[in-house]
Amino acid sequence: MPSVHESSFKETNVELLVFEASESSGVSFASIKQAAENIRGRAHVTPVLSSKLINQILSAGETEFFFKCENLQKTGSFKFRGAYNALSCLKESDKGRPIVTHSSGNHAQAIAAAAAMHNTTAHVIMPQNASRVKFHAVKSYGAHLTFCRPTTKDRVRTAEQVREAVNGILVSPFEHPGVVAGQGTVGLELMQQVKDLEALVVPIGGGGLISGIAIAAKSCNPKVVVIGAEPTLASTAFQSLQAGERLQATGASDTVADGLKSGIGVLGWQVVCRLVDKVITVSEEDIISSMKLIWERMKLVIEPSAGVGVAAVQSEEFRELRFKRVGIILCGGNVDLDHLPWQN
Amino acid sequence: MPSVHESSFKETNVELLVFEASESSGVSFASIKQAAENIRGRAHVTPVLSSKLINQILSAGETEFFFKCENLQKTGSFKFRGAYNALSCLKESDKGRPIVTHSSGNHAQAIAAAAAMHNTTAHVIMPQNASRVKFHAVKSYGAHLTFCRPTTKDRVRTAEQVREAVNGILVSPFEHPGVVAGQGTVGLELMQQVKDLEALVVPIGGGGLISGIAIAAKSCNPKVVVIGAEPTLASTAFQSLQAGERLQATGASDTVADGLKSGIGVLGWQVVCRLVDKVITVSEEDIISSMKLIWERMKLVIEPSAGVGVAAVQSEEFRELRFKRVGIILCGGNVDLDHLPWQN
Repeated sequence: MPSVHESSFKETNVELLVFEASESSGVSFASIKQAAENIRGRAHVTPVLSSKLINQILSAGETEFFFKCENLQKTGSFKFRGAYNALSCLKESDKGRPIVTHSSGNHAQAIAAAAAMHNTTAHVIMPQNASRVKFHAVKSYGAHLTFCRPTTKDRVRTAEQVREAVNGILVSPFEHPGVVAGQGTVGLELMQQVKDLEALVVPIGGGGLISGIAIAAKSCNPKVVVIGAEPTLASTAFQSLQAGERLQATGASDTVADGLKSGIGVLGWQVVCRLVDKVITVSEEDIISSMKLIWERMKLVIEPSAGVGVAAVQSEEFRELRFKRVGIILCGGNVDLDHLPWQN
Repeated sequence: MPSVHESSFKETNVELLVFEASESSGVSFASIKQAAENIRGRAHVTPVLSSKLINQILSAGETEFFFKCENLQKTGSFKFRGAYNALSCLKESDKGRPIVTHSSGNHAQAIAAAAAMHNTTAHVIMPQNASRVKFHAVKSYGAHLTFCRPTTKDRVRTAEQVREAVNGILVSPFEHPGVVAGQGTVGLELMQQVKDLEALVVPIGGGGLISGIAIAAKSCNPKVVVIGAEPTLASTAFQSLQAGERLQATGASDTVADGLKSGIGVLGWQVVCRLVDKVITVSEEDIISSMKLIWERMKLVIEPSAGVGVAAVQSEEFRELRFKRVGIILCGGNVDLDHLPWQN
């Protein structure tokens, strides 16, 4: 099997691909650097942790892993960066208008918290099967809550109804350049915190996180490899790359990684198809055992979505790439402690 | 109620008390600074985390709390510092002899790991009711395991039998100046990491951790207040201070904070009676809810013993002291994820 260094991207001009991705998505390295300014002092610069024991377990010590702890971010996930930045980027005439969004949870909390910090009202549409902890957190930030059925279609429709009713502004979880630029600051920060990273491993849901990170990281260092990680049960990015065109999610996924149930979005696809070197898919069993491993050995509470990246680096496919220094994004830590996935 | 600033220690000469405590315990600020040298590069300098949300929950934002994350220490608790330092302090002629200890778990793991790093054999005596995760961890470091009944008496007797059989050296979990000096590095580090701390809150079991920390912290700043935290179900330090003499634990305690079941030791008492300003006792219910709070809001896996300090700062007794900047030692993170105390 060819290593990713010999992949189809080898001969191409990465700078050109970054330029094309920025043009078609509306997210540039400049807008990510501006986002970093916008969130400074409001979002945490999250720590990067590492552990020899974990390196041993994950790669028999062959690879050094650097864990970017977005589970320690405000509201418990990276989503706060994008939400806060999107509200910072509003036109002057739109400031103060209600903010409306739909989300399975983490973006909802992020919008609720960011809206409160921007002194505006948030209206959040959540699927009725999202976890109790997430409902509770969204309400604790003072947001208004509306429930919908757990399908993308119903979420979008309900959000539009609410938006009209309150004359609000919709801030989508990932189809929004301001949101994606905010998420890109994770990559910018990590590249500044750890030198000589060869690869970054990033979970993919709608694709906002990996898009922002890919633009930021490849602008810092065109040689860095960006690898997506998806649950096999929710792998539209993987399937889209295979098909050569964006495929939509076919109904609700049953993956335990509830933050990754969305299909890859339109904006995300513009970046992923150009800048993501590979997507690795992982089983539910591996997601759960990887999540538990991080709890047990690194003493960090992470959610299943964050376990997806940890599972990916344990795959044969990843090990064969023989990277020496790898960043893994622990994207969030919001779980219901009364219902853990390794317990029945 | 008088604040602790007006306590019986107000008029006394703290420097003299530190001197007396050092003389009678064999642990001095110099030996703690030497311990810091001995463990440099082998133990982690653990991060200090803080959270405005937690400050809000614990004190309505009145107090800034700084959490010293010894759950992120090697082997999952502060105990590695003491164990590694004790082995570093062995006489040349004793190096290489087997190391013997008894422990409910964290010291056992620490000795096992430290012995492996010093290229020597560890023999560990553990109560048969310690958690499965702890057995497993101790064995994974290559230590020999012997089980005993869960009483202090049986632990000590079994350890002595093993020590004789292997011609080993006993390294007690807390009745050992090298161990206590190692634990003191937690306090030294924290005082260097966070400026202007007014108080430190430290869980008490055998008293090794709080003794080392009290000597280190009061040597750095005689004005810093050191507060112990104990489960009401295992509160021999509290009771000893009330009685004015060291009392022994009366049989096995049922507290969920299994790391704190030991009664206050002889060495620890020499320091605690002189340098600990107050001991606060907390209920089992408060220990469990505090532990869960840190998991939920700070995304850190901590064990019940670490929850004891978090519970203490929520007591009326602590709030009345109105400190502005407080360090809390999150002493460890070793828990059995299949048996969490908030689940039946």
